[in-house]
Amino acid sequence: MNQKLTHVRGDGSAQMVDISAKDVTERKAAATTVVTTTEEVTAMLAENSLAKGDALGTARIAGIMAAKRTSELVPLCHPLPIAKVTVDLEVDTPKPGQVLITAEVKTTGRTGVEMEALTAASVAGLTLYDMIKGVHREAVITETKVLAKSGGASGDWSRA
Amino acid sequence: MNQKLTHVRGDGSAQMVDISAKDVTERKAAATTVVTTTEEVTAMLAENSLAKGDALGTARIAGIMAAKRTSELVPLCHPLPIAKVTVDLEVDTPKPGQVLITAEVKTTGRTGVEMEALTAASVAGLTLYDMIKGVHREAVITETKVLAKSGGASGDWSRA
Amino acid sequence: MNQKLTHVRGDGSAQMVDISAKDVTERKAAATTVVTTTEEVTAMLAENSLAKGDALGTARIAGIMAAKRTSELVPLCHPLPIAKVTVDLEVDTPKPGQVLITAEVKTTGRTGVEMEALTAASVAGLTLYDMIKGVHREAVITETKVLAKSGGASGDWSRA
Amino acid sequence: MNQKLTHVRGDGSAQMVDISAKDVTERKAAATTVVTTTEEVTAMLAENSLAKGDALGTARIAGIMAAKRTSELVPLCHPLPIAKVTVDLEVDTPKPGQVLITAEVKTTGRTGVEMEALTAASVAGLTLYDMIKGVHREAVITETKVLAKSGGASGDWSRA
Amino acid sequence: MNQKLTHVRGDGSAQMVDISAKDVTERKAAATTVVTTTEEVTAMLAENSLAKGDALGTARIAGIMAAKRTSELVPLCHPLPIAKVTVDLEVDTPKPGQVLITAEVKTTGRTGVEMEALTAASVAGLTLYDMIKGVHREAVITETKVLAKSGGASGDWSRA
Amino acid sequence: MNQKLTHVRGDGSAQMVDISAKDVTERKAAATTVVTTTEEVTAMLAENSLAKGDALGTARIAGIMAAKRTSELVPLCHPLPIAKVTVDLEVDTPKPGQVLITAEVKTTGRTGVEMEALTAASVAGLTLYDMIKGVHREAVITETKVLAKSGGASGDWSRA
Repeated sequence: MNQKLTHVRGDGSAQMVDISAKDVTERKAAATTVVTTTEEVTAMLAENSLAKGDALGTARIAGIMAAKRTSELVPLCHPLPIAKVTVDLEVDTPKPGQVLITAEVKTTGRTGVEMEALTAASVAGLTLYDMIKGVHREAVITETKVLAKSGGASGDWSRA
Repeated sequence: MNQKLTHVRGDGSAQMVDISAKDVTERKAAATTVVTTTEEVTAMLAENSLAKGDALGTARIAGIMAAKRTSELVPLCHPLPIAKVTVDLEVDTPKPGQVLITAEVKTTGRTGVEMEALTAASVAGLTLYDMIKGVHREAVITETKVLAKSGGASGDWSRA
Repeated sequence: MNQKLTHVRGDGSAQMVDISAKDVTERKAAATTVVTTTEEVTAMLAENSLAKGDALGTARIAGIMAAKRTSELVPLCHPLPIAKVTVDLEVDTPKPGQVLITAEVKTTGRTGVEMEALTAASVAGLTLYDMIKGVHREAVITETKVLAKSGGASGDWSRA
Repeated sequence: MNQKLTHVRGDGSAQMVDISAKDVTERKAAATTVVTTTEEVTAMLAENSLAKGDALGTARIAGIMAAKRTSELVPLCHPLPIAKVTVDLEVDTPKPGQVLITAEVKTTGRTGVEMEALTAASVAGLTLYDMIKGVHREAVITETKVLAKSGGASGDWSRA
Repeated sequence: MNQKLTHVRGDGSAQMVDISAKDVTERKAAATTVVTTTEEVTAMLAENSLAKGDALGTARIAGIMAAKRTSELVPLCHPLPIAKVTVDLEVDTPKPGQVLITAEVKTTGRTGVEMEALTAASVAGLTLYDMIKGVHREAVITETKVLAKSGGASGDWSRA
Repeated sequence: MNQKLTHVRGDGSAQMVDISAKDVTERKAAATTVVTTTEEVTAMLAENSLAKGDALGTARIAGIMAAKRTSELVPLCHPLPIAKVTVDLEVDTPKPGQVLITAEVKTTGRTGVEMEALTAASVAGLTLYDMIKGVHREAVITETKVLAKSGGASGDWSRA
């Protein structure tokens, strides 16, 4: 295991580290989160979605837009020329009463896009909560995590 | 239970609903999230923190700044004159190898600040992940949820 | 007719003028724009919209989010606590091959929200163009204008 | 004619499509808009401009700054390393009582800059309206359109 | 003298402190900065300014826009409903070869606007440097300071 | 000496000039600013810093984040893929009662990063002032200047 916190110099100070010596390569990452609510609520989301509704679409757009602003939100992230963002929402997955959100991000740049994928998934989850909080304030956003990444010196990785 | 998705009109379209008839009152909300990593990592965070390090402070600042940008990130949130944001990080809480992040937000306005508290906690969690991902890519952000709210017509509420 | 450009001082310099002596009142404004394309394209938009598609919903969300950022885009606009934004898109209106976009904005503040309504309509129009440019690059955004305003010292007004 | 809405996947969902396989080339675009007001107002603008006034300059700066924020405003636009933005305003063109705004944008990137040029022209137009609305609320922003583009696989194009 | 750093809690952590118990009053602040360059450069600025040029106007607009974004830049600043921002630039003041920038900001809110005035002056200064750096890279931005403030519990103050 | 203001065209108008013909090279810049306060205040900063406090760390993060937003703040700056930002704060340097802030920025791009380094230093200085203004309102931010730059056609330069 690498023994150092990322972005922290020897003196303990947080800095935006130098990536200029890293290669420009194609890099991808996927992340997911799960919004855990009730089956009553997921039924509403599915019905809204069927009937030309915007509920899931709004969460998707919020996630995509947030991915582009990751380096404004996460202080030590480098700005990257994002080449692709997709956000998908699956109702009643992995279990009834849950919504699985999956974000995929791609760049051709000097560092990876895990943070962009996580940010997209998180903000899509926050937006979904914003729409369901009137009916189910107790809903929880859980299991926000990186699924897989590829490209760059550290190579490909996917969660076991 | 309220029977309608928030921010969705009768025709299913997502809109920023009218809050101008709601009272201007003092409103508070608290939210938490947990970053689940290893005890090796939380030891590094604690040590960095002891030694004038910025690791936890950076996550705190990121969370505070994100609270102020909630209405830019979550499409249907109303902009609010935020009067207070605090973000606290507790290492090895609730369990060893975890970091508990608690955000509290206060406003004097026409709608609640649950989304601001959730956004602060989430972005602090993302920022913490950004610093630990070099040593523990498998870390997970989990249990992002509203703890309590007060103020406004819907009254006070806290998670059972 | 008033004889002075708004936001321009006696010496000709552009400034953000003082509104602190104006009353806090409820203010509303509506604005519209029209995207003029072909019937082939409006048929695609209608079909996408029927089939759970996000085309019109994405333009709506973009318009709503832009309204909240008006004072960042238009240099001399005052930031306002926006209380409501709705954006509606009507396909084949006012004529076949056109999309009519109507934005309504409300605040309780010291100055009007005409610029917010115009910005919402404009950015919804730009977003719609972004989705149709692959099939009809010649599409034009036209007739961006304020329809009506109410509230404030200058009283109510609607386009004749 | 291409048969698909841009940015919309087969399932109808809006996504930020993958441009990583596209070539990095020099790309340009020009767009215009026209603010239609009265000759009395264009005379004020011309006079302000002659007398060290900021009216047209403010609209120009607003347009330039907006071009750089296009990917924040238009949800499915890719961020691009913008290499040039110019915004020009011509008073009493194409007709007395009108202001013609022309924006030109250049990048070396993987996708075109039509949206950046349109956004620059639109926001310059909104800013001009903001300054003239006190004297002529009925002014209209019209004919916002792409004039020409070059670079990229789809080749050069200019409006007939 | 007050004995505590602003925004720092008893445990040393930086937080956005609670202002909800403070009164909503009219508050003003003025700040200045000086760009020190050569008389050759200030002559160019004056000449550009006389000849319909945008040099000083661009710095003014940049300062005004930055004032509105102060709470995004300065982590612990509260967002405030800014009611007025003016930025003035005086060439060859206080001495030949210098440009004096004065920013005035007003709000009706719960905390003061010193930071907004300072931010406006600073960003106007940075923008001016950006335009003169091609001719005088050695120019220095100096004496950025609050001149006066009024309103609020701490009362009126002006620099001796 | 170059005889023209940067970013100003022949007609005096401010424009974002074309950099597409410039080479993509590694470019660096360093800038500093000094916050002049009292020894009592610098003692508080040092003490806070020793005791796990966030005072200096908050200013550092604010400076780093501001560097990434330079092209949003300074109207005619080009957006650049920033590869590194460090901000260092030295208490009681160069003299007792002062804080020296040094920012270093690196990119691989078509234009230099002097403005990014200056913006990082300035906003770190503003943030520090925000924390000390409660104890020493008279503090001044002074000597904001570029120290050195390298890369690009104009070659390396450092302040004499």
